[in-house]
Amino acid sequence: MIIIMKDDATEEQIKNVEHVLRDFGFKTHPIVGEAKSVIGAIGDKRQLSMNQITTLKGVESVVPIMRPYKLASKELKKTPSVIEVGHGVTVGGDQLAVFAGPCAIESQEQFTEVSRLCKEAGANILRGGAFKPRSSPYSFQGLAGDGLKIMYNSGHELKMPICTEVLDTRDVELVANFADIMQIGARNMQNFQLLKEVGKCNKPILLKRGLASTMEEWLMAAEYIMSEGNEKVILCERGIRTYETATRNTFDISAIPIAKELTHLPIIGDPSHASGTYKYVPAIAKAAIAAGADGLMIEVHNCPEKAASDGAQSLKPEKFSSLMKELDPIAKAVGRKLL
Amino acid sequence: MIIIMKDDATEEQIKNVEHVLRDFGFKTHPIVGEAKSVIGAIGDKRQLSMNQITTLKGVESVVPIMRPYKLASKELKKTPSVIEVGHGVTVGGDQLAVFAGPCAIESQEQFTEVSRLCKEAGANILRGGAFKPRSSPYSFQGLAGDGLKIMYNSGHELKMPICTEVLDTRDVELVANFADIMQIGARNMQNFQLLKEVGKCNKPILLKRGLASTMEEWLMAAEYIMSEGNEKVILCERGIRTYETATRNTFDISAIPIAKELTHLPIIGDPSHASGTYKYVPAIAKAAIAAGADGLMIEVHNCPEKAASDGAQSLKPEKFSSLMKELDPIAKAVGRKLL
Amino acid sequence: MIIIMKDDATEEQIKNVEHVLRDFGFKTHPIVGEAKSVIGAIGDKRQLSMNQITTLKGVESVVPIMRPYKLASKELKKTPSVIEVGHGVTVGGDQLAVFAGPCAIESQEQFTEVSRLCKEAGANILRGGAFKPRSSPYSFQGLAGDGLKIMYNSGHELKMPICTEVLDTRDVELVANFADIMQIGARNMQNFQLLKEVGKCNKPILLKRGLASTMEEWLMAAEYIMSEGNEKVILCERGIRTYETATRNTFDISAIPIAKELTHLPIIGDPSHASGTYKYVPAIAKAAIAAGADGLMIEVHNCPEKAASDGAQSLKPEKFSSLMKELDPIAKAVGRKLL
Amino acid sequence: MIIIMKDDATEEQIKNVEHVLRDFGFKTHPIVGEAKSVIGAIGDKRQLSMNQITTLKGVESVVPIMRPYKLASKELKKTPSVIEVGHGVTVGGDQLAVFAGPCAIESQEQFTEVSRLCKEAGANILRGGAFKPRSSPYSFQGLAGDGLKIMYNSGHELKMPICTEVLDTRDVELVANFADIMQIGARNMQNFQLLKEVGKCNKPILLKRGLASTMEEWLMAAEYIMSEGNEKVILCERGIRTYETATRNTFDISAIPIAKELTHLPIIGDPSHASGTYKYVPAIAKAAIAAGADGLMIEVHNCPEKAASDGAQSLKPEKFSSLMKELDPIAKAVGRKLL
Repeated sequence: MIIIMKDDATEEQIKNVEHVLRDFGFKTHPIVGEAKSVIGAIGDKRQLSMNQITTLKGVESVVPIMRPYKLASKELKKTPSVIEVGHGVTVGGDQLAVFAGPCAIESQEQFTEVSRLCKEAGANILRGGAFKPRSSPYSFQGLAGDGLKIMYNSGHELKMPICTEVLDTRDVELVANFADIMQIGARNMQNFQLLKEVGKCNKPILLKRGLASTMEEWLMAAEYIMSEGNEKVILCERGIRTYETATRNTFDISAIPIAKELTHLPIIGDPSHASGTYKYVPAIAKAAIAAGADGLMIEVHNCPEKAASDGAQSLKPEKFSSLMKELDPIAKAVGRKLL
Repeated sequence: MIIIMKDDATEEQIKNVEHVLRDFGFKTHPIVGEAKSVIGAIGDKRQLSMNQITTLKGVESVVPIMRPYKLASKELKKTPSVIEVGHGVTVGGDQLAVFAGPCAIESQEQFTEVSRLCKEAGANILRGGAFKPRSSPYSFQGLAGDGLKIMYNSGHELKMPICTEVLDTRDVELVANFADIMQIGARNMQNFQLLKEVGKCNKPILLKRGLASTMEEWLMAAEYIMSEGNEKVILCERGIRTYETATRNTFDISAIPIAKELTHLPIIGDPSHASGTYKYVPAIAKAAIAAGADGLMIEVHNCPEKAASDGAQSLKPEKFSSLMKELDPIAKAVGRKLL
Repeated sequence: MIIIMKDDATEEQIKNVEHVLRDFGFKTHPIVGEAKSVIGAIGDKRQLSMNQITTLKGVESVVPIMRPYKLASKELKKTPSVIEVGHGVTVGGDQLAVFAGPCAIESQEQFTEVSRLCKEAGANILRGGAFKPRSSPYSFQGLAGDGLKIMYNSGHELKMPICTEVLDTRDVELVANFADIMQIGARNMQNFQLLKEVGKCNKPILLKRGLASTMEEWLMAAEYIMSEGNEKVILCERGIRTYETATRNTFDISAIPIAKELTHLPIIGDPSHASGTYKYVPAIAKAAIAAGADGLMIEVHNCPEKAASDGAQSLKPEKFSSLMKELDPIAKAVGRKLL
Repeated sequence: MIIIMKDDATEEQIKNVEHVLRDFGFKTHPIVGEAKSVIGAIGDKRQLSMNQITTLKGVESVVPIMRPYKLASKELKKTPSVIEVGHGVTVGGDQLAVFAGPCAIESQEQFTEVSRLCKEAGANILRGGAFKPRSSPYSFQGLAGDGLKIMYNSGHELKMPICTEVLDTRDVELVANFADIMQIGARNMQNFQLLKEVGKCNKPILLKRGLASTMEEWLMAAEYIMSEGNEKVILCERGIRTYETATRNTFDISAIPIAKELTHLPIIGDPSHASGTYKYVPAIAKAAIAAGADGLMIEVHNCPEKAASDGAQSLKPEKFSSLMKELDPIAKAVGRKLL
């Protein structure tokens, strides 16, 4: 790390900073300039909070050089991780992963029916919400345990892995019993207790990016899970919060090449939650695959009783099927397989 | 609510939307224009997810008119809430609340000593972290139960209420046994399970604004707690995430008059976490009081063994004491009491 | 537009709002609810500033229904515009437009050489900066008139249209004499005097999105140009400002499908300025084409004297050539032609 | 500056970077670590674009140490600037500056009347818009030259300096003839040609912060003006763009203490444009003064013909007068004078 001293820092203050750094095992290299002095410090930053140095007298700022995550980085593992998620499906290899599923779990028949349509269209993983994080306490909160069983049955019947969200440390064991992949939602990306708890499971974790998380914070959240022993983390870009209101969130397309540079973990894109409207889902889905994503998560709805419905952010099964056909040549163009 | 139909919506689609709305008990008022039609719907939006209407054929968008929160709003309770937090201290009345406390709980002696200095300077509530949410799994995670006991002892001795964060639904009961005020941190503002759990306690809750939460999402989080029966919610503005990097977060000074307009709940300001550097704490603290905040939360550190330390975002006890004296005439200027 | 009245608005205030609206030629439809009243107003919002209604007594807020731009919208022109930019090149049709060019104009020989390499790789429009908007007054400000002549000569020799930025109303005539396409940079997107001035020219305008502009503000800027008589506007998404620092700006991929929905104007993507680093340019370029962009603007550098240079956001000619080959099958997959 | 080399940078690449730096007159200090090497470079960064170093082979990133602005910084001038703006009024001293004025210039009588009311309430500078930057080309664009004359007459009669915006390089001379202070609006903060042009005048410049500008970009814009010889720059914080929609912009209260730390230039706050609604103006105005601002700019309207009007972001003269009285004790509390 580099310690930048204030313009009026005294020689004694510089020596004191060096002293503290050497106590933590760093080698120090002071560079005294006309206007400013800086100290280069070589060592493992993870031993030391940058904050502890910032507080020393005469210090203006501290610039980290090493990244704060290790297991998630390419330092130790340079090749991309390919994660087995059940029923022979993998995430991170040549074959793209497509998570798809209905808006709400209403009954066994309905869920199996829409899941079958998703499978026929080319999806290889089922998604659905049993526990739902809702902004309003007055909104439907999900079917909980009953929803888990319905998903499990459909997955079993269709021989497809299932992915569902876990919201509470107290539910981790229950969800792990039914799900093939456990999802950490955007709102819980920095719920560190939950991250640690799923880190103790031996199940793949789909880690959604927080509403306003930086790439570094996201990879630190992955590190939390991995540091407990579970290295099967799949990143999912689902849009970030910006000033623009034309979409619900702003899909950060750059997150894909940046993730490919910084980590060996696979990354998928979720155009449904990013845009908040089905109209923009196809364009963003194509963009994500073209940019190098390892897969997609797409909401597909099945509401036969509401024939008049267009779907807010969900695609109808037939539109999803068309999209999969349109995605296929793009996948091939970037050296991946889809259908 | 107002339903805006697409330019090419058919008469049949308009009738269908009206039909669905009337099924939910709304009265409908279609307005047919040359380019566009809209439908006014009078009724209780909380019965119906806006999403359900958005998905109907021919609908372009839905504009809410009523606010989605009720208990937190001024609809039912027009006068400001004054919340008793123990030892005769209230938050929301004429007397400003000042939460202060050391950076880290290290030992009983140290915590009591700095707490005493805070009290002498004019603080009336103690703050401290027993469970610490840390971005890195490799950082110090707090003293947990031992920290709670230390805080409890100091509060008891100094006759001051104590406030500490709870991170996990499994710890709510434990923390509630020791703390006078339980804090929900910014990262957990939309951890709905935790909100519900603290909503079942009979303890005041300090609800920090999420990293990138809108005013409405924040008040919906308060509504979650209140809908479980606990109406003792204190809001805490602690800075929001923006593009500006000169401060760690951007203190949203407007949140104070907006909260005063939208809710009866008290609101305090946390300049320490907002700015991330002690240098800007006094200016922001003064601004918050001048804007009408009901109090402040300020980090005051006590690190006698590190004599060379300036403190990153913490104030030294003597600086805190000076700040309190500077705040006093501002408090008086806006009709409040501080010292 | 919909006027939402305050909870305590009086009957007289409602009548007054209706009166004012009718004066402006609107038909009004009051809807009186138990908690709130609203007024639907049918007419041409462009006759009236929403602000004028917001200020009336008893009004809580005003919700627009019609979009504020007209010439840029699909109301009057439903089919996509195909804009001729010279030398037989068009923007907006099946053939994708690729603007490419060197980092800096240094000499005639150098500019022509790198332009030739761009053309060989498949670019069909040359870009370069004669007038440079620089954040620092101490940075190189461009070759001005001499740069224009160099660009003109290269374009003439290679039979390619040239695109260059105009910064000042006083330079519009000069730049229009040399350039085939005049660029309005992100920092000038709301320099309304400049927009009006280029609106009086009969030259295609490349309108970059402002640093933190909404889609609506961007289309209003296009409307400024078009309202002066020049309808040849090409939109260029170049990244927006967000809290994320891993890229210089955040490329808003959704801007492409949104533009396709809202306007008939063509839209291209600029991955070089969005990311600020050449490493992410290929992934973002592919994403933009897959999402439906009508073309790309890419910085290609030519600095033979600095053999050790990797280029910050510029691609070397050979990398640009590889990228074009990789883009070709993606273009075909979305029904467009590139090479 | 500090140059951080890539993990796999070769010794030769490090030597090459050092070579280039020394060519530019820097002294270099290489620090070779186990995982990474860095190079400390002591010299004047303003001689060299950081970009030029970033592009060298083996370089990961470049960290600036010196600030890029000089005239605006406290390096050369440590004491706060006090700027004379005419009629004996100064900005930056003990006496706070209060810019106030009507929403629109309609006639000589009206402008003089509302200006007189502003003066009586305690304002010491008049503001008004002769040239108006409007988002829509269909909105009223201001009275131009006639508005300037009206303002000039009122200022002359009331013996108050007047401040008005200049939008176009071609109008600088005209505006400078009439105005005591020329305003650069938020949308033109990076209109560098306009900054240079007003930098050649001998008139104080009110420089509004850009819609989404960092503190550094803002001070660089001031540097543009100052580098042309005009050091009389007054900064004006008017809210930045964030995701929050409850206010039109987010008033960045921290900008005030940060400006006080980084520059000798005075800074005022504009709560009217920041909030976009008159309701929040008093709270933000008080906060700005408490935080140490050198003054305020407040819209005061005068629309006697629209008796039903509440004013969107403008205060009525009587509300402005009350606010001034409420501000007075806060000004005193921070050691300043208002009335």
